[in-house]
Amino acid sequence: MLQPDLIIQGGTLLTLVEGEKPLLHATLLIQGDRIAGVLAPGEERPPFKGVQVLDATDSIVMPGLVNAHGHTAMTLFRGLADDLPLKQWLFEKIFPAEAKHLSEETVYWGALLGCLEMIASGTTTVSDGYFFQDATARAFQKAGLRALIAQGVIDFPAPGVPDPAQNLAVGKAFIERWNHASDLIRPGLFCHSLTTCSDKTLQEAMALSQEFSLPLQVHLSETEEEVEEVIRRSGERPVLHLAHLGLLNESLIGVHAVHLEDEEIELLARNRVGIVHSPESNMKLASGMARVSEMVKKGIVLGLGTDGCASNNNLDLFKEMDTAAKLSKVATLDPVNMGAATVLRMATVWGAKVLGLEKQIGTIEVGKKADIITMDLRKPHLVPLYNPMSTIVYSASGSDVKDVIVNGRVLMKDRTFTALDAEEVMARVREISDRIRA
Amino acid sequence: MLQPDLIIQGGTLLTLVEGEKPLLHATLLIQGDRIAGVLAPGEERPPFKGVQVLDATDSIVMPGLVNAHGHTAMTLFRGLADDLPLKQWLFEKIFPAEAKHLSEETVYWGALLGCLEMIASGTTTVSDGYFFQDATARAFQKAGLRALIAQGVIDFPAPGVPDPAQNLAVGKAFIERWNHASDLIRPGLFCHSLTTCSDKTLQEAMALSQEFSLPLQVHLSETEEEVEEVIRRSGERPVLHLAHLGLLNESLIGVHAVHLEDEEIELLARNRVGIVHSPESNMKLASGMARVSEMVKKGIVLGLGTDGCASNNNLDLFKEMDTAAKLSKVATLDPVNMGAATVLRMATVWGAKVLGLEKQIGTIEVGKKADIITMDLRKPHLVPLYNPMSTIVYSASGSDVKDVIVNGRVLMKDRTFTALDAEEVMARVREISDRIRA
Repeated sequence: MLQPDLIIQGGTLLTLVEGEKPLLHATLLIQGDRIAGVLAPGEERPPFKGVQVLDATDSIVMPGLVNAHGHTAMTLFRGLADDLPLKQWLFEKIFPAEAKHLSEETVYWGALLGCLEMIASGTTTVSDGYFFQDATARAFQKAGLRALIAQGVIDFPAPGVPDPAQNLAVGKAFIERWNHASDLIRPGLFCHSLTTCSDKTLQEAMALSQEFSLPLQVHLSETEEEVEEVIRRSGERPVLHLAHLGLLNESLIGVHAVHLEDEEIELLARNRVGIVHSPESNMKLASGMARVSEMVKKGIVLGLGTDGCASNNNLDLFKEMDTAAKLSKVATLDPVNMGAATVLRMATVWGAKVLGLEKQIGTIEVGKKADIITMDLRKPHLVPLYNPMSTIVYSASGSDVKDVIVNGRVLMKDRTFTALDAEEVMARVREISDRIRA
Repeated sequence: MLQPDLIIQGGTLLTLVEGEKPLLHATLLIQGDRIAGVLAPGEERPPFKGVQVLDATDSIVMPGLVNAHGHTAMTLFRGLADDLPLKQWLFEKIFPAEAKHLSEETVYWGALLGCLEMIASGTTTVSDGYFFQDATARAFQKAGLRALIAQGVIDFPAPGVPDPAQNLAVGKAFIERWNHASDLIRPGLFCHSLTTCSDKTLQEAMALSQEFSLPLQVHLSETEEEVEEVIRRSGERPVLHLAHLGLLNESLIGVHAVHLEDEEIELLARNRVGIVHSPESNMKLASGMARVSEMVKKGIVLGLGTDGCASNNNLDLFKEMDTAAKLSKVATLDPVNMGAATVLRMATVWGAKVLGLEKQIGTIEVGKKADIITMDLRKPHLVPLYNPMSTIVYSASGSDVKDVIVNGRVLMKDRTFTALDAEEVMARVREISDRIRA
């Protein structure tokens, strides 16, 4: 007989499986790290022994969110520099702060702070690209979040990688240390961009990623300036250039993809490249408005990411969903496209697919990993409830998340962190920020 | 000797007075409905007797937010209809739902629900335009919020005003009932738009508003279609048409102002017309992107409003500030304009000025009304703190507001409502929504 370890009962269950409707007063059964079953309201519940029960009365129960692009430890620089011209922001503020202040220690605490923020706002899987990634991986492991942790690769001296000739060797060693080392952590590589990585670096990073069957992330066509620089160097637009380098394939994750021509969208779709949309970062840095509804129409799998805290400045995917829907509507002057159901899929099952995790997470289905969140609806801004997806996307915030379960483990219960000491993490980051400020 | 009734101590005080810096560990003294004094950390504090003390340790203390445009009772329709073409949304969903379900009773409970949501997200003053406004005014009075409550005027049969020939008489009677009836409530008129009100109606509404020294609100150039209709009817663009009708003056509040030509911006600035920006509504309904940074440069006083819950779908001005900054940056492809300090002013002192209340509210100054909020910073997404204004605009949400004081009265303490029974209000609106759904 099925003996669950954890049951979540009484909530409105949104499985996000295509075609399935919300199930009222459902009971979700979790056994070990897996979803073991769903009982409908009428179904008899066997007398489970010693099971942990989460009460989801007046709550939505849904898959945890997938933050498909971030630089988690950049929480350290949240609010350090805003409202500046892009080059001044990057070269006078962010890069110098990173060069001076990033270390195994600071990245660890910065990543833990980001993990707390993401747990508190219902994110259960994160794709991270940064430096000192052993520290990031340790932080995510400690936090209990699922993550793709990618070592940054750039053809310049970088934090933790002073000699760029070693960037791929460092990346390979990182992959070897973390591959299959944890049920929750997958390692990978993150090539910074086509203007900061040579063709050779990009090709070698792809070969290495494919050798280990891991995705390769790259910032792609984020700004018009970047596109122009690629054209100046290579004679062709970024996506065409990647095609000529033989890099357009299912292992590639293109992040931002703001400035694309029709032909590039076609190429990305045909080659099943995963794309991650980060609308709040694109807005705050004035990068532009990605053609997301056209990408969806062409069949591109689109995830949603917050980007780092220096360019957003928060890691709340609920806000990002709301903004993704609204920005696309105003950009196209069409209120119909990118509706609530679409952006909710971006933040869950599509994001999982971009990261190659769609068989494990992204929907509530028996046999999938138990990455689940509940949202308390007993709040004025979530009343009335006509349509749960509309409520989630247009009315809710991350702070409405009540419980967070990853891999069957409760990481937040009734808004109390169960796996991390939030006070300690905040205190350590405040100390680090005092050094950065000085 | 000064004997305060309420003191707020230990917080970081943001007065928002031009040129004043954040004051750490300050004590704010409130006497009756007024701000009575500020003690700096070193200053000796007399032994006040019987005073209520709010602890603001690790909190920001700042002026309450001003929601300069909304239709509060539309909380009733939150999530009823989304992601639809504008005309279908309005004519097939919202107008029929309003015609069938609005009444003194439903507007009262819908407005109370909106009041709860706004209190919970730090709004202390609201400008509302709708129908059955006696009910709205009673709700705001019960809630203890400061408000400009404007009776809707439209040349069609409207909820509560079946005969449009009576629309201004109804408005005048409403003004006479509420003018000077309460310290918190100011009545007024809200002409729906230039396409739904005749020139004569607009002129008479302005004459009536000026007779009582009250502002007149009007939806202005919200959509391209509306602008074209005004041109078809009058031969000129909306702002020029208003100028020819003699309606451009300090009493006029133009809401939305999305589609403006240079000449119109000049005219609005020269005539000191107040403008209210509602970026989330403009995005969700795909109305367009207002030229806010140009308006600010021309000296137009710009407030910020959430609009109604059917087109947003929330009343959280923190989200609206974040979006206002980010949307302007991406619309202009310039990350510098509409920085955190500017949008924070829009949501406080500028909004107060648009509503004609700048002598009473909008900043923390001795003698002004005590409309104050505190925000708890002991949360992962608000750490570290380099710049309070950046934290407020780009990282915080309404749910970070801890205490809310309006007119010296505590409406929320440590996130518990002190003046309203939230459970009752939510239950009543759920009942009404069951009728609307059916």
